[in-house]
Amino acid sequence: MAYVNFSYDLLHRFCMDVFQKFGFTEEESDIIQDVLLTADLYGIESHGMQRASFYHKAIEKGVVKIQAKPEVVFETPVTAVIDAKSAMGQVVSHKAMLMAIEKAKTSGIGIVSVRNSNHYGISGYYAKMACKEGLMGFSCTNSHPLMVPTFGVSCLLGSNPIAIAMPAEPYDFLFDASTSVVTHGKFEVYSKLGKEVPQGWAVDGKGHPTTYTDTVIHDIAAHAGGGILPLGGSTEQLGSHKGYGYAMICEIFSAALSMGGFSKDNSFKDTEGHVSHSFMAINPAFFGDPEAIKKHFSEFLQELRESPKAEGQQRIYTHGEKEAEVIERCLKEGIKVNENTMGEVATLCEYLGMDFSTYFGDYIPPKYTAKW
Amino acid sequence: MAYVNFSYDLLHRFCMDVFQKFGFTEEESDIIQDVLLTADLYGIESHGMQRASFYHKAIEKGVVKIQAKPEVVFETPVTAVIDAKSAMGQVVSHKAMLMAIEKAKTSGIGIVSVRNSNHYGISGYYAKMACKEGLMGFSCTNSHPLMVPTFGVSCLLGSNPIAIAMPAEPYDFLFDASTSVVTHGKFEVYSKLGKEVPQGWAVDGKGHPTTYTDTVIHDIAAHAGGGILPLGGSTEQLGSHKGYGYAMICEIFSAALSMGGFSKDNSFKDTEGHVSHSFMAINPAFFGDPEAIKKHFSEFLQELRESPKAEGQQRIYTHGEKEAEVIERCLKEGIKVNENTMGEVATLCEYLGMDFSTYFGDYIPPKYTAKW
Repeated sequence: MAYVNFSYDLLHRFCMDVFQKFGFTEEESDIIQDVLLTADLYGIESHGMQRASFYHKAIEKGVVKIQAKPEVVFETPVTAVIDAKSAMGQVVSHKAMLMAIEKAKTSGIGIVSVRNSNHYGISGYYAKMACKEGLMGFSCTNSHPLMVPTFGVSCLLGSNPIAIAMPAEPYDFLFDASTSVVTHGKFEVYSKLGKEVPQGWAVDGKGHPTTYTDTVIHDIAAHAGGGILPLGGSTEQLGSHKGYGYAMICEIFSAALSMGGFSKDNSFKDTEGHVSHSFMAINPAFFGDPEAIKKHFSEFLQELRESPKAEGQQRIYTHGEKEAEVIERCLKEGIKVNENTMGEVATLCEYLGMDFSTYFGDYIPPKYTAKW
Repeated sequence: MAYVNFSYDLLHRFCMDVFQKFGFTEEESDIIQDVLLTADLYGIESHGMQRASFYHKAIEKGVVKIQAKPEVVFETPVTAVIDAKSAMGQVVSHKAMLMAIEKAKTSGIGIVSVRNSNHYGISGYYAKMACKEGLMGFSCTNSHPLMVPTFGVSCLLGSNPIAIAMPAEPYDFLFDASTSVVTHGKFEVYSKLGKEVPQGWAVDGKGHPTTYTDTVIHDIAAHAGGGILPLGGSTEQLGSHKGYGYAMICEIFSAALSMGGFSKDNSFKDTEGHVSHSFMAINPAFFGDPEAIKKHFSEFLQELRESPKAEGQQRIYTHGEKEAEVIERCLKEGIKVNENTMGEVATLCEYLGMDFSTYFGDYIPPKYTAKW
């Protein structure tokens, strides 16, 4: 399966039109497209254009409510809880992170947890928002259930990513990763490529290792047992209980503190959003001189990058470095989109009554329907 | 190598005497022995009595300064930075977590970062302190350099554990794990048992996999290249960059925010402490009704424990459950101590001029000197 290349500007214009056509305001559409395309600009194909059809389905089913008015249900100078009322995840999350940032600027730390929301895209986007204001940023979310606990076969946990961003030179530190060994999006990408996934990513309904991409995707959607493994795999010897533990940290910050849904409370049959998120901003100026802290940390990052490499390796990356390089390349050379994703985009255009060729000229995508 | 069993009360009395004999006050000795023996009571052999000789060496070399007077160098209602001035890690950390707890009670959240400290024992001890006050607790620390970054061979990172505790019934949630695939303490335990470590725990100086326990221990101590792998192993396919990323989170909270030493700034040749820690307490009452939050979270934990098991597995644990069970057993049946550890204890008694037999009767331990 091949990829096709489009400029960032074209995809940006297309996404702005798509979300406005769905009924979002221009400001909301701008937030949603920015989260989506930032994933592609970071090189995270699984959460970029590839996810457009996921949001299409969620809006069509009504689980994402375009007119929702999220409500702040609890607030102190350092904390808040928002009931998203099934709003689009990106829209309420952007608002929540802005609140956390304001609290951190004024009071030093801000934590805002959100309940009754929907899939919010990449966690790193929100963590990085804080970073742009000179703050340390943190974000995590739960999601649809797709990860089994250590020694279990029922998906009771989501991919539950944790992101942390910290101002640094020449690149901000930006760590953003699912606490499962990989995300569901990776399975979607392997499915589009018609490939089996590597050993160590998933187990079947009996808890045995499996590499059958579409079977895992099916079993997760059908709650048939079996799913994605925690970071650390299936046994304690390599730390399965650690990935499982980090996933629990997401559930605590997002669902426990907000009294919201845990991952297991989400289903593809839902008619309302039950996803929970959390956002934290920490102000380095409440610990000392923020510029000195930034320099101190940046020097350590540089030392890591320059340290001796394992045989056969050319580089040691620090988190956020790859993203910074991919952004630069994508803005210059365009974003590569999987042709099957373009098949989904064509379906989306048809649904919204938009003319595919206005954006993509005479390019004809294959017919494609996602396997989940 | 066999284990020998002693009652908690005996070991408690022995440790109290040891640390007072070193010159710590009764109150300080009580904190130190409690952190140490809590590790044994949690079933974490690597950080219990096993570590006594480590502290012995650190005090003997003067890197731990018994008379140190830690100083609060920066403070706001929600944050503080403490310069430990080479104090015993447990003593300054206990004080720091108490400060974070007080801030969380009053202001909702407290973060206290510490620099110029020493090894502080198990992270979970401090996280759990918050939990006992009805708060969510977090603690992390860096340590001596022993973990290689993904694709690297130089130990620039420590075992860098992260602990999170959250009030729950019937057991508090308590996650405490190194961000390396295993801790250095596990290598010490394997060394005492004369066993090779499993594949996937370490690499040699060229970045190739190795199972030679004592070689890894030697290479780490000698900064010869090679060390323990991050959680997720050696490649990105199974998430090595994630373990590496979590280790960086420890460095940010502990060393960056406090302007303290990073793991790589610590060496066994040090004459002053450069370890950095961080402690956070979060008050659920600043998010809603803490009892409702606790109940909501406890129900989820129960559902995890009761969910279907993988073939061949009898139980799914939630974090903190094993510890709760081991405590009960150890208080009743005693704590099992490795005989080689008892060899170290005998050396310690000799050093301090204490009569080994006063505590351990006619038990005669083997001669043993740690390989690091």
